[in-house]
Amino acid sequence: MTALAIVEAFIAAWNRNDLDAVYAMMAPDIIWDNIPMGPVTGIAGCQALMTQFPPMEGIDFVTHHIMANGNVVMTERTDKFLVGGRWRSIRLMGIFEVNAAGQIQHWRDYFDMVEFQREFA
Amino acid sequence: MTALAIVEAFIAAWNRNDLDAVYAMMAPDIIWDNIPMGPVTGIAGCQALMTQFPPMEGIDFVTHHIMANGNVVMTERTDKFLVGGRWRSIRLMGIFEVNAAGQIQHWRDYFDMVEFQREFA
Repeated sequence: MTALAIVEAFIAAWNRNDLDAVYAMMAPDIIWDNIPMGPVTGIAGCQALMTQFPPMEGIDFVTHHIMANGNVVMTERTDKFLVGGRWRSIRLMGIFEVNAAGQIQHWRDYFDMVEFQREFA
Repeated sequence: MTALAIVEAFIAAWNRNDLDAVYAMMAPDIIWDNIPMGPVTGIAGCQALMTQFPPMEGIDFVTHHIMANGNVVMTERTDKFLVGGRWRSIRLMGIFEVNAAGQIQHWRDYFDMVEFQREFA
């Protein structure tokens, strides 16, 4: 699989709300950086971060643009989360780096913390 | 010139702090959207936006990653602005769409408004 196809499959796993599949695609030493929040490292770190968010009844990452250069993939997305019966939307761009094993090694999402806090209020 | 080369030249014009060259590369109907601030349209709109920022003594857009797919170019950058003798840094990703005339038609930058306000305080 190309890096582009791997990231598309990763986003598809999120969109099935299949967190086991999401974690299975991560490198053991993944660095996931929600830029305004700061990074977490390792799959356990990602799992711990997810427990800090409210339970997600649905997830829909809408990809507006996606492209790759070698093992680096960039996206422009609107990430939608169904929480408490209401969809919350975050506009963002994200960059992924895929390692030689085809795992997500680095993931950085850039968004506005004010928008995030307003949507999840 | 490719879309990639056009965006690299656009960033180079910013880095010379040559706003006349910057505006000359914009499409007349450009939409420039600093996502947390909202869009401005047209070159006059961009010029008006710039007057709302403090005078820039220096500009350095540091490009970490850049790639293109057709007329669409994506970047991961740290944009640095010298204001009042101190460099202010904004981490962001930006997406550019180049029109058939080789002009910047759409430009969207995604960053954290909290970081922006802290840096420019």
